[in-house]
Formats: sequence, structure tokens, C-alpha cells
Amino acid sequence: MSTLWKSRYAQRTLGIKSSAIRELLKITQKPEIISFGGGLPAPDVFPVARFEEACHKVLAEYGAMALQYGTTEGYQPLREMIARNIARYGIFAKADNVLITSGSQQALDLIGKLLINRGDRILCEAPTYLGALQAFNVYGAQYVPVPVDDDGLITDLVDASLRTGPKFMYVLPNFQNPAGVTLSEGRRHQLILLADKYGIPIVEDDPYGQLRYEGEHIAPLVALDRENLRRDNGFTLGNVIYLSTFSKTLAPGIRLAWIVAPEDVILKLVQLKQAADLHTSTFNQYVAYEVARDGFLDQHVKLIRKVYRERRDAMLQALNDYFPPEVTWTHPKGGLFLWVTMPEGTDSEALLKAALAENVAFVAGDSFYANNGHEGSRHMRLNFSHSQPDLIREGIRRLSLAVKMQLRGSHHPVSS
Amino acid sequence: MSTLWKSRYAQRTLGIKSSAIRELLKITQKPEIISFGGGLPAPDVFPVARFEEACHKVLAEYGAMALQYGTTEGYQPLREMIARNIARYGIFAKADNVLITSGSQQALDLIGKLLINRGDRILCEAPTYLGALQAFNVYGAQYVPVPVDDDGLITDLVDASLRTGPKFMYVLPNFQNPAGVTLSEGRRHQLILLADKYGIPIVEDDPYGQLRYEGEHIAPLVALDRENLRRDNGFTLGNVIYLSTFSKTLAPGIRLAWIVAPEDVILKLVQLKQAADLHTSTFNQYVAYEVARDGFLDQHVKLIRKVYRERRDAMLQALNDYFPPEVTWTHPKGGLFLWVTMPEGTDSEALLKAALAENVAFVAGDSFYANNGHEGSRHMRLNFSHSQPDLIREGIRRLSLAVKMQLRGSHHPVSS
Repeated sequence: MSTLWKSRYAQRTLGIKSSAIRELLKITQKPEIISFGGGLPAPDVFPVARFEEACHKVLAEYGAMALQYGTTEGYQPLREMIARNIARYGIFAKADNVLITSGSQQALDLIGKLLINRGDRILCEAPTYLGALQAFNVYGAQYVPVPVDDDGLITDLVDASLRTGPKFMYVLPNFQNPAGVTLSEGRRHQLILLADKYGIPIVEDDPYGQLRYEGEHIAPLVALDRENLRRDNGFTLGNVIYLSTFSKTLAPGIRLAWIVAPEDVILKLVQLKQAADLHTSTFNQYVAYEVARDGFLDQHVKLIRKVYRERRDAMLQALNDYFPPEVTWTHPKGGLFLWVTMPEGTDSEALLKAALAENVAFVAGDSFYANNGHEGSRHMRLNFSHSQPDLIREGIRRLSLAVKMQLRGSHHPVSS
Repeated sequence: MSTLWKSRYAQRTLGIKSSAIRELLKITQKPEIISFGGGLPAPDVFPVARFEEACHKVLAEYGAMALQYGTTEGYQPLREMIARNIARYGIFAKADNVLITSGSQQALDLIGKLLINRGDRILCEAPTYLGALQAFNVYGAQYVPVPVDDDGLITDLVDASLRTGPKFMYVLPNFQNPAGVTLSEGRRHQLILLADKYGIPIVEDDPYGQLRYEGEHIAPLVALDRENLRRDNGFTLGNVIYLSTFSKTLAPGIRLAWIVAPEDVILKLVQLKQAADLHTSTFNQYVAYEVARDGFLDQHVKLIRKVYRERRDAMLQALNDYFPPEVTWTHPKGGLFLWVTMPEGTDSEALLKAALAENVAFVAGDSFYANNGHEGSRHMRLNFSHSQPDLIREGIRRLSLAVKMQLRGSHHPVSS
């Protein structure tokens, strides 16, 4: 009888691994651990008081309406606000081009559902966002990984990869998760031309775009695509689906994100979302609208930038001070993550065990590679947004002990 | 270029119709319409003040924690509360058997994802819940529909249908949507024995179980199944996945529901949920827990029962008073819906147009049949939970005009 269920699981459950990051979340809830593991925003910058005002206002003004079923597309004032906000980045969209989703993870799931048939190839960065691989794996995706360097996806390698006929390209141009690198402006233009040349669309995932700590803003692919198309009839054409979220600018626990896409794509996604969860929480959409409105979101993003810049700088400084010279790392201009490269032959899973013994956590690099090789084993992803600067410094000190031990090939504990 | 996207849609988008009910929602937002269309709970019984207290308490006591990422399984105190609450119905589950979902629609989607390969057959009721068909259609389900009568699914017809090898049975035993009928106790036992005989599991959807207005509670299938198995080692074995929700007892706009299942099934569903939306809103789970706790949910359900019973009675009375004798309807002992049967040859789509001209709405029966025949065209589903008794009476009066006109075969407007 206990095999009844196992014998009934559909083919699509094969190949899903439980996420290393989510499992790590459980370990890292121990108070003694300094975690660079999750992609957690800093709770100390969540606008709790503003949320409380907003909840009060929404229930006082809208009452039961805010607790009732809503439309699948999302709360209209919120869609309009998002359309207005993204216009400043050159993304000219109407509310009808915006679909509210239950976090960006749902956006990835819906896109996978819409576009991927079992065996379809997806061009992605190597390394890339683990959550996207999980979402796409469910639909039987195969991958064509293209490496990144300090200027993001190496577009010179994309042309050849596109000739293998991928269904779409999945790209994180800003402060990429996990590598922290940013796609240069030149490469963005090149990528748009390639998408056009081969007729292969791009899914542009941009959760961190507003969290830039240095350098100039670079136009998103979706804006360059539109320029390239030189059309003025709204958003009906275009090669790019653009994703962003409130998880990193307001709070992740409200699960609010959005998709910007041509209207016929949105209509299809709406049908799939309706079948997936009817709609995203009405209450959360009303509340987020009240929290974000009247310029609060912009002000708040400035605060987050300031706090996260300090934390990034604290991590870069500590790495400089404590890490051995044969280890290198990226210098992210924004976002939440930094990517460490160790000498060839390092085993980051073993390093993680040693690090946990020192009460510090990170995510081993292997999880971020589509094709399950060992390309990631000399890498680790470090999150710098979650902990305060002094804890970051102490965590990097502890981590350096584990790293040095690992580099010496020793498995004996090192006293601090 | 505009065909770029269309050419890329995966096979699984075929066969999804936009839901008649959701589209109807838009029409019925016009203030002059009396709608028996949606499955909307009554906004006048949403516990708005209690929600406000709960939001305040959650943000004051837990602050940022309630806005941070959470575990995929759900908020532990909420899972434990659900496990305690369902024990009174003979469902003995641990928190580990409970997965919090973003509404029951997500539960149906995850179950479809877990169990359905393209072409798999699902045994379902005829008629059945439209939202389940939508969720399962995405995964390429085929259906083996078995008719219902006043005692629910006609289990005598199930044996033969099970021999066609369906992947699972999808059943709504209590106050079924759309027909309003309840599976009798005898048939429940019969169904459990059949599931066991053929090794074919049951998905038991029970959104309305607590909303009984007359008669005695009947044990859910999941409880009978466990009795039948006579095991005491917890919930590790069993043929039934059980679904329920807070949408009809607290509010639908918070999108909170749950799945109760054997632990190995829950583990698989957790992986799929992680890929689908990471987790359900942390904030909403904290708030719902605070709203429901200390006996509030039970008290509130009593109020809902009282209000809905009055509305059901108002609808039954009005149908008696206004409808012609050749039309019949079910007598639901609970839930939100009542099912009307008109003489052979009635076209309920045409009737709906006539009804909208009289400013009253319902859902035409065809939507609730899996195999897209015209079995439903002599039926309509009427919701009695959303409108107050006097509006219900007026709505049924208006609807009776459209019905009489339709039965006369006339397409001319009838003056009221």
C-alpha cells in the first residue's frame, strides 16, 4: 500500500532535487550560525510601521473588498503603479502588460508552463539562478549553459549556442544571482540583436535592478528590445518577457512580483495563473499598493541601497583582510550576492561542512549549474544583505578558517 | 514578429478555456446585476475587525519575521492548528501531514503536477468543479465522468469506470460544487472499498464541509479510509488526499488552503510547491493564525452557517414561488450552491443572455462537465451565499422571467 503513491507519481517529478538553499534555511535558523546562505533581505530594513499603517488603512477604507476574491490579472491600481514606475527605466508598458504573480518564483513557473515542452532546451547563464532551474525542470527542460565573466553572459559565445535552437534565453542582467556580475551595455545590445536574428525570445529576470550601489544604471533588455524594434504601437510586439518583484524592495513574505510582457503573452499567462492559484492575495496587493504609494517605495529603496552598500563593503573588506591570496571574488555593483572562486580542485561541499562546524554557512557553487557537473565545486555564493557589518566581518573570519583548512587539504579542525 | 510567441507556446496551453466563472465575475461587478454566478462568500460576514486586530498583533509582536521568507511547508503553528481542528472530524494527522497552499486552486494544481501525465484518465463527478478541470487540463488529463444524484456520486457506476484504470478519483463529497448534493454515508464506505480494491487513490475536495445547515455530519472519506486500513502508525499510509481551505470560513482574498496527505506525498508536493511559488505568504499565515485562534474560527463558522442557511432558504422559497413546475432543483444541506434542472432541450447559454438582460447572472451548466458535451445545457448553478435574502428573492423573480421566456421558446423581451 505504501507504494501506491510512488507508483502514481507523474514523470515530471523526476529530476527535482530539494533545493540546497531552502534546506540550508532550516540549518541557518540556529541562532549561533552566521549565514551567508539564503537570499534573505535584511529584516531590519523591512518597513514594518508602514505596513501596519497600510493594513489599517486598507481594512478601514476597503474592508471586505480587500478580503474578497479578485481578478487573476491583479489589483488594477497596483498594475498601473508598476507600469508608471518602470517607465523611468525606459520600459513603456500599460497596465494590461503587467501580470501580478505570487512571487517571481511563480512567474518562472508560469513561463515554464507556457513555453517548455519536455526536452526543450533553454539557454541560460553558467552559473544561473537555482530557483529558475527548479521551475523549468518540472517541465522537463534541458539546458544550453553559456558562461559569465565580470561583464555578465559572454555574448560572443551565444551565437553558436542559439544555433542549437533553444526555446528561449533566461538571463539575469543586473547583479546576477549567484555571481553578482552585471551584463555590460555593449553585450545587452548584442544580445538583443541575437534574439532578433534567431527569433528566440529572452526572459529577463530583474529582481535586484533597483539595488545598485555604484556606477550608472544600464537600460534593461526589454527597453533596448523595444528601441530596436522602433515601434510605437505600445507593447504588442517584442522579444522580451521582463520579471521583477517587491521581495527585495518591500518584503519577500508578502509574495508579490510581476511579469511585463506583450499583451497576447499576458493573456496566456493569465489563463495559466487562473488554473494555478486563481489570483494572488487581494489583501497583500491592496497593502503593498498602500505601502509603496506617494513616493514611499523610492525613499525606502534609497535606504536599502545605503544599508546594503555598507554590508557589501564590509564583506569585500573582510575578504581582503582574511582570505588567502589564491582565492578571488567578484565585485558586485548591486544586488545581494558575491561569488567566490577557489583554486581548481576545491570541493565546496566539503568546505561547507567545515564552515558549518565554524558556525558559518554559504551555498556551494554546484547548485547553480544547469547540467549537474562539478563546475561549481570551486565556487561559493555569499549573501551580504542579511547580516550586519560586524557579523559579516566575523562570519568571513570564520569562513576563512574553513577555507584555509580546505586549501591545506587538512580535515582537522583549526583553532581560532 | 507577432507570431514569435504563439509559435513557442508549449502543447499544454491547448485545451485551456478561460473560465466562464471568472469572466462572469467581470460582468457581475456592475452594481445593477444580482449575481448568482461566482462562488463568492458573503463579504458582510468577513471578520474585518478581527483581521485588523490580527494584523496589528502580528506586526507588533513578530515584526519583520512575519514579512520574511518562510518554509515551503507553511507556518508551523498554523499547520498544528489545522491538524488539531480536523481531528474532531476523525482526521488524525500530524502537522507533517499538512501542507499550506495558496488557495485550494494551488492544491489542485500541485496534485495535477504530481500525478498526471498527458493522457492519464481522472475519474470525476458529472457535473464537477470547473476549477479542478482547469487545473488538471494543463497537465493533459482525460476524464472518466460518473454522474451524481441526490446522494452524490453514484458509486454503483464507479466499479466499471475504475476498470478503465484512472490515475485517481476526484470527489467533492459535501455540498458539491456545482450540484449542491452530498455523498451519503453508505456510498462513502463503498467508495473507500473500491479505492482499496483497485488501488486507485481519491482526492477529496472539501471546501464547504463545515458549512452544514441541516442534518448530521458525515465522516469524510479520509477518515473512513483510515478506519478501513486499521493502522495506528500515524498517517504514513492511506488512499486519500484531503483538501480544505479558509476561503469559505475566513476570507478568500488571503488565499490560504491546505492539503492533508501521507507524509511521502507531502514531501513530493513540497518540492513541487517550492518550484511553483517558494511558499505561501508568511504574513497571511501569521494573520490567519491570529484570526482563527482561541475559538474564533468556530464561533465565526456558526455565524456563517446562520447567515447562509437564511439565504439558502430564501432562494428555495423564491424558486418555489416563482419558477414554473417543469423546472426542478437540488436541496443542498450546506455549502454555497444549488443546481437547477430545466426540461430537455433548454439552452442555458441562451438563457444566460436573457437573464443578463434582466440584470441577473448565473453559471450555465456546460462548464461543469469534463467532456465538453451538452449535458450541462439544461442546467444552471445558482450561488446563494453572496446576496442578502431580499436581493435573492428579487434575483430569482427576474430569473424566472428569463426562464419562462426560454421555456416558451420566445426570444422577445418580457416586461416585468
